[in-house]
Amino acid sequence: MKISSEPVLIDAGVLRDFTEKVFERLGVPTEDAKRATDVLIEADLRGFDCHGVARLFPCFRRIKNGVIETHPKIKIEWLTHTTGHCDGGNGLGMVVGWHAMKACLSRAEEFGSAFLAVNRSDHFGIAGYYSSMALDSDMIGIAMSNGSPRVVPTGGTTGILGTNPISVAVPRKQDPPFILDMSTSVVSSGKIDVVLRKGQQVPNGWVYPPVEPFLDSQGVVPMSVLQYPLGGQKITGGYKGYGLGLMADILSGILSGANFGSRLSASKKPDAQANMGHFFGAMKISGFRRVDEFNKDFDSLVQDIKSSPLEPDTERIFIPGEPEIIARKENQRKGVPILSSVLEKLKQIASELDLKIPQ
Amino acid sequence: MKISSEPVLIDAGVLRDFTEKVFERLGVPTEDAKRATDVLIEADLRGFDCHGVARLFPCFRRIKNGVIETHPKIKIEWLTHTTGHCDGGNGLGMVVGWHAMKACLSRAEEFGSAFLAVNRSDHFGIAGYYSSMALDSDMIGIAMSNGSPRVVPTGGTTGILGTNPISVAVPRKQDPPFILDMSTSVVSSGKIDVVLRKGQQVPNGWVYPPVEPFLDSQGVVPMSVLQYPLGGQKITGGYKGYGLGLMADILSGILSGANFGSRLSASKKPDAQANMGHFFGAMKISGFRRVDEFNKDFDSLVQDIKSSPLEPDTERIFIPGEPEIIARKENQRKGVPILSSVLEKLKQIASELDLKIPQ
Repeated sequence: MKISSEPVLIDAGVLRDFTEKVFERLGVPTEDAKRATDVLIEADLRGFDCHGVARLFPCFRRIKNGVIETHPKIKIEWLTHTTGHCDGGNGLGMVVGWHAMKACLSRAEEFGSAFLAVNRSDHFGIAGYYSSMALDSDMIGIAMSNGSPRVVPTGGTTGILGTNPISVAVPRKQDPPFILDMSTSVVSSGKIDVVLRKGQQVPNGWVYPPVEPFLDSQGVVPMSVLQYPLGGQKITGGYKGYGLGLMADILSGILSGANFGSRLSASKKPDAQANMGHFFGAMKISGFRRVDEFNKDFDSLVQDIKSSPLEPDTERIFIPGEPEIIARKENQRKGVPILSSVLEKLKQIASELDLKIPQ
Repeated sequence: MKISSEPVLIDAGVLRDFTEKVFERLGVPTEDAKRATDVLIEADLRGFDCHGVARLFPCFRRIKNGVIETHPKIKIEWLTHTTGHCDGGNGLGMVVGWHAMKACLSRAEEFGSAFLAVNRSDHFGIAGYYSSMALDSDMIGIAMSNGSPRVVPTGGTTGILGTNPISVAVPRKQDPPFILDMSTSVVSSGKIDVVLRKGQQVPNGWVYPPVEPFLDSQGVVPMSVLQYPLGGQKITGGYKGYGLGLMADILSGILSGANFGSRLSASKKPDAQANMGHFFGAMKISGFRRVDEFNKDFDSLVQDIKSSPLEPDTERIFIPGEPEIIARKENQRKGVPILSSVLEKLKQIASELDLKIPQ
């Protein structure tokens, strides 16, 4: 199934205004509407388009169905000086995530490090948003989540784990900082969507073989299309990606009392609470070493990497997070590319809430 | 080059006695000799044979050359309540690692979590040894290291990063616990050694293509054989493995003031101090959730994974760390398989130190 893939460019500010208004009309308090919007727009700006305003329609539907609370009671309880639990109160994942990460940063300021396991949340967008929140405080930021099951464990044949993202951000005085923001599958599901929309062949090793990948009526790959963990098959280290994905589920789901493994299929139903889990953390650079010395060595390592002679057809070697910084600049300037299928959903929301269509 | 690969089985206790005596004869204090030995024997028992007594000869040579101290001044300084720096004093990596991890565990008992960045160390054996030290205290253990450069960054053509291992261990009441202990390359270098020794073809995607893998006169792949990061090429997510390997180098090398990137080639020279870096951490399970509830959900997740219908030619789905527990039982019972090339080195040490050959 090929869907027209020529995206429309929409100004980031226009998208931001629209998204904030949608959340407000749905009853989300202004501050929270701004926070949730910022996560989605930031995803679009960084080029993670499947985690941007493409996620607005599911949020809209789930708030309307009463399975996401607009005024969640977010409860943070520190069980030791530096570790604790956050009950997200079934709020928007972006709002829950922001509060939990802020709490980690403030506690790490005092104790050097701090960590929270979060349950009763929903999709939180890009993990890299939360880890990046640590950068301005000269801290290392950590964010993980579990998600709806579509990755096979090595040796198994069914989707048990989500594409569970792991993000670690490390500050650096010079641009770019280090922002690793990766799914623990070979690729995120969104990348498969993009290839299929263009009518191209899905590259070897992206999906678990028995199922031929296809797009459903919503223009996304359904849960029945299974994926390999990072590393692919066992012989090429797939058990490591499976191990990383399982680690993210243990820290996000088991440690917090959220759903986990195949129980997370609830997060795909429009009328069931997701009870998704996340894990956040922060550690102060100055708690290990003088920041200026750290910066000096970090620059040398980046230079070391960048000076490796390039492979053919390669323009440069990127530091993790650098492609997103480049995309951000371009999307800020030219507008955010929005797929026609996503635009249709935004129009549907606009019509239902009597808002002006963003364009 | 094919080397006879039929290993000799040697009783673990005999190997342990021999290894302890070697360290003692070299001037290592008894307690430290026992600690260092335990890390090496544990590696052999778990089946990580390239990190077991196969590492004794390089230790022997480096102690004799005066680049590893037998009485290191290990200095641990906590710069915040939960984060700090450990100067390994150029000691044996296994001794430095043990002390640093112990310090994290004891501090995490009080504050919920604790982390140390370590410099001036040497090869520390298997990362999983240190993360596993947390299990008996119902804590999550974390251990990483950098290492000699042989992994290409995605887009580059030279070895900048080590196969930098990452290990995370999570306790579980029932066996097996979760022990992820992985190099951030497609495979560890030792696995390439094993395939070549058997005269077999190195599987596609294990090594960076331009160099045909070969064994040097010591029977190991030399540094000139470059490796892909986990995920392989860019199209199959190799940039994620590169990102994980770089993260391990930042936390182990940059955060601690150790060598990093291509500077770690010093660790391969018999007469240069390695100044290798590690990163250790611990977090209490009870700091997030009641341990009994945690155990109950963890069991359900394991059961969920194990009940996925099996792929053809697969006997079971493993939890990370489980194959090593099985290998441990077998090697404990039958004896540890020691390659003839490794046995030759042990004989050489025995002869130089006037010790009985282990057999």
